[in-house]
Amino acid sequence: MQVLHMNKGAGETSYATNSTVQTNIISTAKPVTEEAILDIFNHVLPESVGIADLGCSSGPNTLLVVSEILNVIYAKWQQLGRPCSPEFRVYLNDLIGNDFNNVFGSLPAFYNKLKEEKGSEFGPCFISGAPGSFYGRVFPSKSLHFVHSSSSLHWLSQVPPGLASKDGRGSWNKGKIYISKTSPDCVLEAYSSQFQKDWSVFLKSRAEEIVGGGRMVLSFMGRRSTDPRSKESCYQWELLARALMSMVSEGLIEEKKVDSFNAPYYAPSPEEVKFGIYKEGSFILDRLEMFEIDWDGGDGDGDNYDATPTSSTLSNGARVAKTIRAVVESMLESHFGGDVMDGLFQRYGEMVGNHLAKTRAKYTNLVISLARKV
Amino acid sequence: MQVLHMNKGAGETSYATNSTVQTNIISTAKPVTEEAILDIFNHVLPESVGIADLGCSSGPNTLLVVSEILNVIYAKWQQLGRPCSPEFRVYLNDLIGNDFNNVFGSLPAFYNKLKEEKGSEFGPCFISGAPGSFYGRVFPSKSLHFVHSSSSLHWLSQVPPGLASKDGRGSWNKGKIYISKTSPDCVLEAYSSQFQKDWSVFLKSRAEEIVGGGRMVLSFMGRRSTDPRSKESCYQWELLARALMSMVSEGLIEEKKVDSFNAPYYAPSPEEVKFGIYKEGSFILDRLEMFEIDWDGGDGDGDNYDATPTSSTLSNGARVAKTIRAVVESMLESHFGGDVMDGLFQRYGEMVGNHLAKTRAKYTNLVISLARKV
Repeated sequence: MQVLHMNKGAGETSYATNSTVQTNIISTAKPVTEEAILDIFNHVLPESVGIADLGCSSGPNTLLVVSEILNVIYAKWQQLGRPCSPEFRVYLNDLIGNDFNNVFGSLPAFYNKLKEEKGSEFGPCFISGAPGSFYGRVFPSKSLHFVHSSSSLHWLSQVPPGLASKDGRGSWNKGKIYISKTSPDCVLEAYSSQFQKDWSVFLKSRAEEIVGGGRMVLSFMGRRSTDPRSKESCYQWELLARALMSMVSEGLIEEKKVDSFNAPYYAPSPEEVKFGIYKEGSFILDRLEMFEIDWDGGDGDGDNYDATPTSSTLSNGARVAKTIRAVVESMLESHFGGDVMDGLFQRYGEMVGNHLAKTRAKYTNLVISLARKV
Repeated sequence: MQVLHMNKGAGETSYATNSTVQTNIISTAKPVTEEAILDIFNHVLPESVGIADLGCSSGPNTLLVVSEILNVIYAKWQQLGRPCSPEFRVYLNDLIGNDFNNVFGSLPAFYNKLKEEKGSEFGPCFISGAPGSFYGRVFPSKSLHFVHSSSSLHWLSQVPPGLASKDGRGSWNKGKIYISKTSPDCVLEAYSSQFQKDWSVFLKSRAEEIVGGGRMVLSFMGRRSTDPRSKESCYQWELLARALMSMVSEGLIEEKKVDSFNAPYYAPSPEEVKFGIYKEGSFILDRLEMFEIDWDGGDGDGDNYDATPTSSTLSNGARVAKTIRAVVESMLESHFGGDVMDGLFQRYGEMVGNHLAKTRAKYTNLVISLARKV
């Protein structure tokens, strides 16, 4: 898992320039975030407010979220007529491989903007980087009031161990890289059991870090269907597997390389999410919502969708492929090698384009709002 | 000041491979560090211990210091027969330009080593990165028990403003880059007044962050003499200015470039340090010690010094030049350009070598131990 990180820098294939899907997910979840934050401060008004963003990545989204959270809290303080601003402790969390240097480099401008917009009454505000897997403890005990995470919790702590045969040589998911229409039940079980294990460790860790009455808003890929083989949660991986297999058929990639690769990813159903929360027991589920988001980042409600297979939908395919590349390339590169990446995402872009010409493909996103029991 | 950072990476000119001087300073100050830490826990035994290292840099020294501090605290807990380990909150601070990615990359191995050496009873321990200038607030109010800083506080927050004439075109320190034998009094005053201003802001900021009874151990370049022109605190800069001027004489660097460059550095006397502490008023000075350290990193006590100008002392010169280059290159490069760096440090190495052939050159280091008034 150390190799999972968003593409670094600000170039053409970087996450920073290919993260509109994630930006739109953040905006869509914004009302839920606001409601949760305001609810915390109906109960307590701490002098020092602890905030964490889990899976902060590096790019425009990183400080966008922080900025929105600070806005909501400070507006509440002003509305209550409090004589002075709370102190803000903001912890940015991501895996060790994340480009924290890049995030830190944008802090001076961010602090200046805060001062300009909010005046010298605001703060102080201390932003720090807390590297490490959120499937385990990351923050001190009872140090947080609000935890946010967007587009991160669909990543598992590891590839489910049950996908290879016991001697490690056979694979139960040949030619596929995630759950697929043709995956046997044991693949589904391996994935869902890894999700339940990770979800439970996640909740248990946060339960120690969040104060009673503190809140958590999490959004991540999921599915409406109870069937984990349903297209809404698998099809982007299905096409990527096909792109890989087309390179296998031309001898550009070894077939056993594809057989032995599986994404550490899971898009759970609402029932699976609820079951984990209930079982762990430290949090109350205040809200669970689902929404669709177009593969190219649109909100799934707009009417400007054009299904004609023109060059424009084909280039939509390339654009979608870039948003996926920015997220999964580090992982694929370490397994298949850097040489095949351009070719792979070229093919993938075409396949996505053809798919978009036939149908309007959407991701299903879950957003949940949790309260730490007092 | 954003351009001041140790040379990145692990290559030949990196700080990571050229930091034995700083490593030896840390070892020499170790007894003072230990004594200060033990004193804290004669008074309080918090469940969560806050520790900060200011100017942590990136390289072997960064986690060396943290490791030593954790060792001392945990040994104290065990000696007291406490049933469980405290939680450790460790904040690594440096300027925005520091290579935090490199530091974070070494955390998994560090955590594993902690677990191996101390067992699962130890901790939890949370290490985070807190970027920003320590001449201002960096940490939440009353969040720290122990603050450490080594080889950082001789860097000022900025080049003293009084070194240029009011129209910004004339320089009071022509041909020099720090206080020199020939510097006029106004240069000395500009430097010492910038130091007093910075030192006061530093103490005031830490006073808000450290709990009553908390301790701070700081070591930095200084001088025994009351005269800031004395060789012990200036001569490494004197030689660097000569190396620059020799390049000026060959037309490789513009003279006005040297005239307009001054190092944001100050090596204070014990009196200046004490005066600032007394004036700010939040800390009690428990200990102030001075020690010498050879330019090449030796502890200044050994007898294995060879003054014959052989190729060995000349290569000593090159070695010393590399330790300085690793620290000051980012600053010089942004002013003089990258092209002249190799030539500059080549000349500097030769000049240092010639100087070492005549005398045993030493830095004076100050180490002070402070207690936050309750």
